[in-house]
Amino acid sequence: MRTLPSPELASTIAHRLGAELHGVDREVHGVATRDEATSSDIAFLDKGDPGAAGVLLCRKPFEGRTTIIVPSPILGLAELLGGWFPEALPGGAIHPTARVHPAALLHPNVSIGAECEVGEGSVLFPGVVLYPRVRIGRFVRVHANAVLGADGFRYEPTATGLRRIPHVGGVVVGDGAEIGANTCVDRGLLGDTVIGPGAKIDNLVQVGHNCVIGPHAVLVSQVGLSGSVRVGAGAILAGQVGVADHRNIGDGARLGARTAVHTDIPAGETWLGEPARPVREAMKVYAALKYLPELVKRLGRDGG
Amino acid sequence: MRTLPSPELASTIAHRLGAELHGVDREVHGVATRDEATSSDIAFLDKGDPGAAGVLLCRKPFEGRTTIIVPSPILGLAELLGGWFPEALPGGAIHPTARVHPAALLHPNVSIGAECEVGEGSVLFPGVVLYPRVRIGRFVRVHANAVLGADGFRYEPTATGLRRIPHVGGVVVGDGAEIGANTCVDRGLLGDTVIGPGAKIDNLVQVGHNCVIGPHAVLVSQVGLSGSVRVGAGAILAGQVGVADHRNIGDGARLGARTAVHTDIPAGETWLGEPARPVREAMKVYAALKYLPELVKRLGRDGG
Amino acid sequence: MRTLPSPELASTIAHRLGAELHGVDREVHGVATRDEATSSDIAFLDKGDPGAAGVLLCRKPFEGRTTIIVPSPILGLAELLGGWFPEALPGGAIHPTARVHPAALLHPNVSIGAECEVGEGSVLFPGVVLYPRVRIGRFVRVHANAVLGADGFRYEPTATGLRRIPHVGGVVVGDGAEIGANTCVDRGLLGDTVIGPGAKIDNLVQVGHNCVIGPHAVLVSQVGLSGSVRVGAGAILAGQVGVADHRNIGDGARLGARTAVHTDIPAGETWLGEPARPVREAMKVYAALKYLPELVKRLGRDGG
Repeated sequence: MRTLPSPELASTIAHRLGAELHGVDREVHGVATRDEATSSDIAFLDKGDPGAAGVLLCRKPFEGRTTIIVPSPILGLAELLGGWFPEALPGGAIHPTARVHPAALLHPNVSIGAECEVGEGSVLFPGVVLYPRVRIGRFVRVHANAVLGADGFRYEPTATGLRRIPHVGGVVVGDGAEIGANTCVDRGLLGDTVIGPGAKIDNLVQVGHNCVIGPHAVLVSQVGLSGSVRVGAGAILAGQVGVADHRNIGDGARLGARTAVHTDIPAGETWLGEPARPVREAMKVYAALKYLPELVKRLGRDGG
Repeated sequence: MRTLPSPELASTIAHRLGAELHGVDREVHGVATRDEATSSDIAFLDKGDPGAAGVLLCRKPFEGRTTIIVPSPILGLAELLGGWFPEALPGGAIHPTARVHPAALLHPNVSIGAECEVGEGSVLFPGVVLYPRVRIGRFVRVHANAVLGADGFRYEPTATGLRRIPHVGGVVVGDGAEIGANTCVDRGLLGDTVIGPGAKIDNLVQVGHNCVIGPHAVLVSQVGLSGSVRVGAGAILAGQVGVADHRNIGDGARLGARTAVHTDIPAGETWLGEPARPVREAMKVYAALKYLPELVKRLGRDGG
Repeated sequence: MRTLPSPELASTIAHRLGAELHGVDREVHGVATRDEATSSDIAFLDKGDPGAAGVLLCRKPFEGRTTIIVPSPILGLAELLGGWFPEALPGGAIHPTARVHPAALLHPNVSIGAECEVGEGSVLFPGVVLYPRVRIGRFVRVHANAVLGADGFRYEPTATGLRRIPHVGGVVVGDGAEIGANTCVDRGLLGDTVIGPGAKIDNLVQVGHNCVIGPHAVLVSQVGLSGSVRVGAGAILAGQVGVADHRNIGDGARLGARTAVHTDIPAGETWLGEPARPVREAMKVYAALKYLPELVKRLGRDGG
């Protein structure tokens, strides 16, 4: 959820979009995802359950709810976000609105954007870039040239090409977490991307917008997480693992190197392979592959 | 094509290489690939059709053509390029020969090399590095610590080890394109590496030398393209896809996450897997893998 | 091996850990791995052959050897390393203890840590970061935003979470080597991570702690090497290859794109696939996969 710069009436918002308002007018204080929105928030809705949002941005009026009718809710949202939260201009290497604890250690060539926080004892190695709204806890290590808080990668097709959806959330990094060199953690769309306390992330890892990495989880080098992935506490993802968006890796789960995850992974289990399978099955498939050419040859010969 | 610092006679070039000249002497104005060369250019030729180049750098004389005879055309080219186009020295963070539009936005710690251009409304986030000869259009976003224009990765074995082939082309980025954090786009050998207008490239992507990315194409995080890959307009490559060199991805094609491409992909089709297959076939293979261990066991038991 | 700041008695070291000393007291001059340790060194030992170390850090006394008894040798080592070799504070962009040859070329925004060396004719492009103890030979090219010498990625589980093991080794880069943009080479635990002379490393590559890359070896973009991998002279690893820790790639071996290596690879051989196989076998498996869905269907129908 992001609080608006100042509260606005639903009718004003509708006017801003050149859109029609249905239902009673209401004051809007924040913008949130459907699941997080409360009665003082506006949320966009493509379909399904409208949740608890006070005002909905959607294609059709919703019986008994305050709705703003737009042809594309996500593009309507994009327009509103761009207006409410214009991109902060760089304010030198360390933005004047950033708060850095005196016992944090900043190496040369570090950039810290607007409204960032860096806690006690944390170390930012050379070339680290914090985009606006990145909040780093205590005793965190962020290695050289890591980038936290860049745009989430989400675009909406339009008649004139792909339209970027402004991401106005941030990144939160818990106490004792470590983030590797040249690793990227994108900021959230409305809420935050979260790296849990004590999590350890290796070099060259991609963490997409709105991911939530649990406490003490481990992401080995070159892992790639799409948007909104949840990694449970203490889970371990070995090198080059890839996870599709919105998937859930359970607490304490383990994924072998290069595993390709398109499904949720139960807590405590070890999976492997492409597509991912429980490790015993995956090992059997790997072993059996060796015999496949012979099988094909024999069965072809049989006139099958 | 690169224009020489000043025109040179083929005989002078041959002398520079300690090589023999066959055919009539000619004035050379530029150096180009075989396919792009015109009668005023020199091109190197390993084998096959000599194209339209005025002067050829090759192993044997070509009947009726001006040829410079060298034991290795690519190493001859490397020597010439190093002489004609010495590497530009850094000229501070922004090279005096770079042209940056007054309405472009440069964040701290950005480096811009010789002969670069940055257009109106474009934003270079902190730590972006433009090597010489990178030309960025209008309203482009280049995210933190992205590197555009580094050496193409091509080496030629010699008696004393691998010899680097100087890359003297550049990088061109079209209007409205976006390039992710820590992404690398290498410069071309003679011509340019091209990112089309409106193309969207995520974080940690590798785009090799002389690739041409079509308008509005999408490359998701950790995609890797070898040299001279062509990606068609509006094509979408999901995360961790890899493409072998000189392959062509047709307009509007889609590649599922982690697809390994060693063949051309027809326009409009969706492919998946390693090696890449049309998505329906790939899904059938993925589903069938589950039964493979049982098949191997059963057929082994049959005494097959 | 790292030499201690000043020699210490084994009894002093034991006292520092609150641990019991068995055997005769001895003076310790350095700390090393079990295999490299000599009689003047301390080494930690989980199990097996104690090697030649003068003093052992282990769980049980060793007959006739000087041993310091600790519940976890690796955590004991971590505590000692943190005391002996505190992390160097940044000393500006170029640390006063670094030695840079006057004929080396440093671009803007380069950071060079304590005790680093950069040899004659080497070029560090913009944004390159050398952590402490990175020694770069002559005529080396390190491309923009590459990071050499960040923490090795090794953690030990404890009751309060994962404990980082301080890495006090360095990185050594041989003459004529080239390292790509945004590539990461982690420093060693006690010894060095080594990039051999003439080795060529592309962009976005991960080289883990204590890897040893042979002379003239080639690592193409997005390759990932875990810790302590050895790559032989002249070996070629194509794009996106991954190698598990402690594996050995023989001299002149070749690994096709995306190969997943969990075994040693013999010298001179070409392997491919996931898991890696000799290329002929791998190609047969790839070709046979196409027929797998039909096999499964037919044999299922047979009532098998």
